[in-house]
Amino acid sequence: MGEGVAFGPAGGQMAAEIAEQPDVLARQLRDGRASIREVAGRSRGAGRRFVVIAARGTSDHAALYAKYLVETRLGLPCGLASPSTLTAYGARPDFADVLWLAISQSGGSPDLVESTVAATSAGALSLAVTNDPTSALAAAADLHIDIGAGPELSVAATKTYTAQLQALWLWVACWRGDDIGPAAAVPEALIEVLGDGRVTELADRYRHVQTLVTTGRGFSYPTAREAALKLMETCYLSAHAFSGADLLHGPFALIDEDRPVVVVAPEGVGGDLLRPVLALLRERGVDTCVVGAPALGKEYGARTIVALPAGLDESLSPLVQIAPLQRLALEMALSRGLDPDRPRGLSKVTQTR
Amino acid sequence: MGEGVAFGPAGGQMAAEIAEQPDVLARQLRDGRASIREVAGRSRGAGRRFVVIAARGTSDHAALYAKYLVETRLGLPCGLASPSTLTAYGARPDFADVLWLAISQSGGSPDLVESTVAATSAGALSLAVTNDPTSALAAAADLHIDIGAGPELSVAATKTYTAQLQALWLWVACWRGDDIGPAAAVPEALIEVLGDGRVTELADRYRHVQTLVTTGRGFSYPTAREAALKLMETCYLSAHAFSGADLLHGPFALIDEDRPVVVVAPEGVGGDLLRPVLALLRERGVDTCVVGAPALGKEYGARTIVALPAGLDESLSPLVQIAPLQRLALEMALSRGLDPDRPRGLSKVTQTR
Repeated sequence: MGEGVAFGPAGGQMAAEIAEQPDVLARQLRDGRASIREVAGRSRGAGRRFVVIAARGTSDHAALYAKYLVETRLGLPCGLASPSTLTAYGARPDFADVLWLAISQSGGSPDLVESTVAATSAGALSLAVTNDPTSALAAAADLHIDIGAGPELSVAATKTYTAQLQALWLWVACWRGDDIGPAAAVPEALIEVLGDGRVTELADRYRHVQTLVTTGRGFSYPTAREAALKLMETCYLSAHAFSGADLLHGPFALIDEDRPVVVVAPEGVGGDLLRPVLALLRERGVDTCVVGAPALGKEYGARTIVALPAGLDESLSPLVQIAPLQRLALEMALSRGLDPDRPRGLSKVTQTR
Repeated sequence: MGEGVAFGPAGGQMAAEIAEQPDVLARQLRDGRASIREVAGRSRGAGRRFVVIAARGTSDHAALYAKYLVETRLGLPCGLASPSTLTAYGARPDFADVLWLAISQSGGSPDLVESTVAATSAGALSLAVTNDPTSALAAAADLHIDIGAGPELSVAATKTYTAQLQALWLWVACWRGDDIGPAAAVPEALIEVLGDGRVTELADRYRHVQTLVTTGRGFSYPTAREAALKLMETCYLSAHAFSGADLLHGPFALIDEDRPVVVVAPEGVGGDLLRPVLALLRERGVDTCVVGAPALGKEYGARTIVALPAGLDESLSPLVQIAPLQRLALEMALSRGLDPDRPRGLSKVTQTR
């Protein structure tokens, strides 16, 4: 993919796809919700009691987000799959009560297709969430949600990630019969955040940084993971993501004055859970950036605050939080003379088994 | 803990506890198996259909190991818990068919105790695996396995990790009614590996390394994670652990000639799954160390090979693989003038919620 535009400016595709996100999400909400609602009804109707989610790379962060939604909103125990147990070790667990959710941008990863086939034959009801309704994964699963993000040409996934998150949020909301109205605030919030100049300042300040830590808790932990992956893919930075709880257990030893920390701390429970982390960072004089609630950033003396629009439901905030961090990865890559559209050694569809 | 010996040589506790592992595992096998067998019988008898595992830090890597065992050996779907969904977000999933497995060295982490209480009251059968039968976690759970590793004084957990792995292996083997004989080979294999001088050579060669990648797949992926954590805790190194499958998806961009890669590749399925990773590392001329099957290391031109004794069942190899990597962390810390018994900013029991 993308060969036809290989001579555009460095990072041009990634920049365009980041900027496209408000439109992508608005379009999905308008054109996709009827079919997502139908899939949600069939998912609920099947009465499965456990959810197992399979994904790799960026989609694995969407899977982690979905896990929080499933546990807190649907009240179902949920686990992330280890596809290799089905494909390589030949395990055949009893999946009679399982809803198997496979998330993939391309729908083409062989191990996801193969593990979805195995899970379905072991009794699972399978649901694929992809950006390609003609993909092998969409064909292999009982149910399919098309995230409808349009072609993604940059190797670093951006708009497909937020489109996955929104599709999963809508799926759970429709399953519960909740009002999906709150999602309508997301495109506007994204536009506001994408216009925030502090990201450019931050990219400039981090210009010579070689290692960096990101952290979050609850719904916002997937954002920390995805931000670290974007920084690794595009800037070859040693970016470490930790849940705020795990960080206190051992990796905190990593942190010193030379290693900036990005804390994804929204209004609500997830932000409050990060108070002990923020307090320690202040105590150690660490260069801290808070993405989220400005009040938290101020209270703990964060050096940079990327404020997210107030009043968004915490479960929707990951759809907005990631955008400034995608831009940070893009701008840091460009300032290092790298082309984030074509990172060394990566291709768009990864052939893992 | 440990104040009484605070004036010993740097790393003396960690060194002693690493060296103690063959004895700890032999003792557990001899003295602990009857009670583990009893707990396994009661676990099986409860007929639960889904396993959810909760843990933090090093114990989280034992949890990941247990997940592979549960899926491949017990044929039960299994997920790692996000304790915050129960404790902070107040989720009350239907756990009527769930076995809740909580793993903690101290048994004292408040969020694990609280989430175990919540899971039990939501219908789960709860099993705690700890090194302290008088701990709050042991008291909160329906069933308890005491790993019997003796007091662990070093902040960096070593012997409790391998004792957790063996206890979990025995629990699953007894649940299935399998012969536990193969475990008897582990102490001897540990003694052999701990005497391998190549680890000292490796520590010397990595002396100025600032970032490092570890990788593994299947049963050996938890080893890669635990090795990276040990290096972070004791050497403040940016050590990144990736599953071999995820590595190919994005983080591979990270890898260059300056960033050595440690590949945990045992004989068997897990080692074979790493062939595409090993081939790429060779192609890029990366400084690679293989811990595991010497034949794999030779075939792909690894610069260093830490050979593990042949013939060990793949599911037992993680009990042995981690030992040279614990020693690597210890020796790298000492060569940097750091005391791995007292890493900056860490304490033995972490108070997370």
